[in-house]
Amino acid sequence: MKVAIAGVGMTKFGELWDKSIFDLAEEASVKAIEDSGLDTKKIDAVFVANMLSSKLDGQDHLGAVVATLLGLSVSAVRIEGACASGGLAVHQAVAAILSGIYETVLVLGVEKMTDVSTCEITTALMGAGAEEERLAGLTFPGLYALMARAHMEEFGTTREQMAQVAVKNHFHASLNEHAHFPFEVSIEKVLGSPSISYPFTLFDSSPISDGAAAVVLTKKSVRKGVAIRASTVATDTIGLAKRKSLTEVAATKIAGEKALRQAGVSLSDIDVLEVHDCFTVAEIMAMEDLGFCEKGEGGQYVSSGQTKLGSKMPVNTSGGLKACGHPLAATGVKQIVEITNQLRGNALNRQVKGAKVGLAQNVGGTGATVVVHVLQV
Amino acid sequence: MKVAIAGVGMTKFGELWDKSIFDLAEEASVKAIEDSGLDTKKIDAVFVANMLSSKLDGQDHLGAVVATLLGLSVSAVRIEGACASGGLAVHQAVAAILSGIYETVLVLGVEKMTDVSTCEITTALMGAGAEEERLAGLTFPGLYALMARAHMEEFGTTREQMAQVAVKNHFHASLNEHAHFPFEVSIEKVLGSPSISYPFTLFDSSPISDGAAAVVLTKKSVRKGVAIRASTVATDTIGLAKRKSLTEVAATKIAGEKALRQAGVSLSDIDVLEVHDCFTVAEIMAMEDLGFCEKGEGGQYVSSGQTKLGSKMPVNTSGGLKACGHPLAATGVKQIVEITNQLRGNALNRQVKGAKVGLAQNVGGTGATVVVHVLQV
Repeated sequence: MKVAIAGVGMTKFGELWDKSIFDLAEEASVKAIEDSGLDTKKIDAVFVANMLSSKLDGQDHLGAVVATLLGLSVSAVRIEGACASGGLAVHQAVAAILSGIYETVLVLGVEKMTDVSTCEITTALMGAGAEEERLAGLTFPGLYALMARAHMEEFGTTREQMAQVAVKNHFHASLNEHAHFPFEVSIEKVLGSPSISYPFTLFDSSPISDGAAAVVLTKKSVRKGVAIRASTVATDTIGLAKRKSLTEVAATKIAGEKALRQAGVSLSDIDVLEVHDCFTVAEIMAMEDLGFCEKGEGGQYVSSGQTKLGSKMPVNTSGGLKACGHPLAATGVKQIVEITNQLRGNALNRQVKGAKVGLAQNVGGTGATVVVHVLQV
Repeated sequence: MKVAIAGVGMTKFGELWDKSIFDLAEEASVKAIEDSGLDTKKIDAVFVANMLSSKLDGQDHLGAVVATLLGLSVSAVRIEGACASGGLAVHQAVAAILSGIYETVLVLGVEKMTDVSTCEITTALMGAGAEEERLAGLTFPGLYALMARAHMEEFGTTREQMAQVAVKNHFHASLNEHAHFPFEVSIEKVLGSPSISYPFTLFDSSPISDGAAAVVLTKKSVRKGVAIRASTVATDTIGLAKRKSLTEVAATKIAGEKALRQAGVSLSDIDVLEVHDCFTVAEIMAMEDLGFCEKGEGGQYVSSGQTKLGSKMPVNTSGGLKACGHPLAATGVKQIVEITNQLRGNALNRQVKGAKVGLAQNVGGTGATVVVHVLQV
């Protein structure tokens, strides 16, 4: 598989109260198109990833909305799969190009989350889970906390190990001008911050963010040379209760292995990684499920320092969901933006030296959807 | 282009208060898979079209939900483009098969609309339109009424001509056991029913329905021999105010012409047609914009009797949105189900004799998205 990444762009992530969802969509799209050097008229399909606009903004039909903003009358569609919406939109766009129907497409992920109350957003987020989980009165942090508790029980994973993920990702975010929280935090700060759902504190949790990210994909090779070499999707049961295990995300294993085969690379070829750290334990599980360490050893792996910029296997150089921010559907696209910048050598003061191959893992719900992309320069 | 339709299935459309969105999704999916004669495990991707579940059921992430219902761990995604969601999902599925990534896919359109108040649904439906239209206090019938008024002013189209569309589609629905309103109505009944938004009465308007429809698509040829020969999408501005004309849906013209070229057929080859008659005037405009008659002559064309079963060009043999019902995202998929049944010779007492080529036109919003499919046996 080879689909070229012609351009990338993103807005700052954060509480962007002076910008509407339309402003964010246009800003990221225009940046990606400008970066591609292509005329907007070359875009022959638009894929818009979004989860919450219907509920929070009263706006559905975002494909046509974004086509209108760009002055295009081409095919346009909205893609949704909870927090994996961005990755899924990239996947559909890759398929659209490989089908031969389209040549150059725009993928945009956008979310506007900070204009409503915490209560509203907490309820809205549970749309990503199962009906029985909503009826049980669970929240999204509560679901991930169940997984974290199981991981602690089964493997002895500690709160300190989880907190190290937040410390590292905040350090990375401190080097990223687009990050929601571009500042460092200490392990004491993470452990001492208010409890959200045991074992998570506020600083174990990704924030509610506004933001947008966009990529232009094309079947033609482009000068900057980054290409998508694998794009895979796997699903698991929507609810946690029916899973075989609470301590692994089976869909990550399936999509991850398939992606490596599709790209013809092995784990040791990966130079840079963006994974879906919606809560700190999720990064630990991602490293296990992708195969970077044995199951149960993720806590030790991430706290060893080797996933920090400058070490062996830099993970979430963008700052991850934790510190770059998590405007739901923008996240999966932002991962592709970050990896592309790394492979182009454009990642400025957070550049992974000589990065040639990158992998992005984007999760929807508690692992009901997982999308994996492998990019190569 | 050639993608085979291996199986089709649908639920009854109507006020189905004893069935949840999950029940409807499962019923239509299982019917389509059974009809295909394939093992469920052959399905390697799931495309779920839905517009309102996030708002009305609190359930997003429907791709994974449906995969879970079917016991599948394959790629699954939700597709949304207002009332064109169903057609868009078929389009994405066609692209997915042509890409070579997937071989046999399920497309499901599902909507559960009758559990909420008229006020809630009226507000929710405006998500299909533009922000300025919501801010203007317009409703969806109000938007189409503006188009109808312009058509009356510009071309002398009459309320009686519009009413004939409802009379004909109710007649077709009286022959369809899956229809929401399987009964005939007189022109007096249509004209004398309560006003919704001038010039529309209740019987000019498609209903609020529950329902689901599904198709199984595969790249292999199948015994029953119906194939998708064209799949096209075009967009126009999301809001009416920026359109060149209120009396044409430009996206229908673009998608329609492209579909005929793609399929290598001409209008005279079309034996059966499903068009998006959300309001009676929409069927009149569809016939003009697809080229079956000149612009402005649609009123005369549809009231001439030639679009009725048994005549030259049968339109909406299912009963259309008007009388078969309009569970938003299910509609575009139901159109494919109906045309497939016609081309297979399975349409029972509403069979168009010797039908070989069919066309489906699915509209989102007031024409911001249009999807056209051509099917051939």
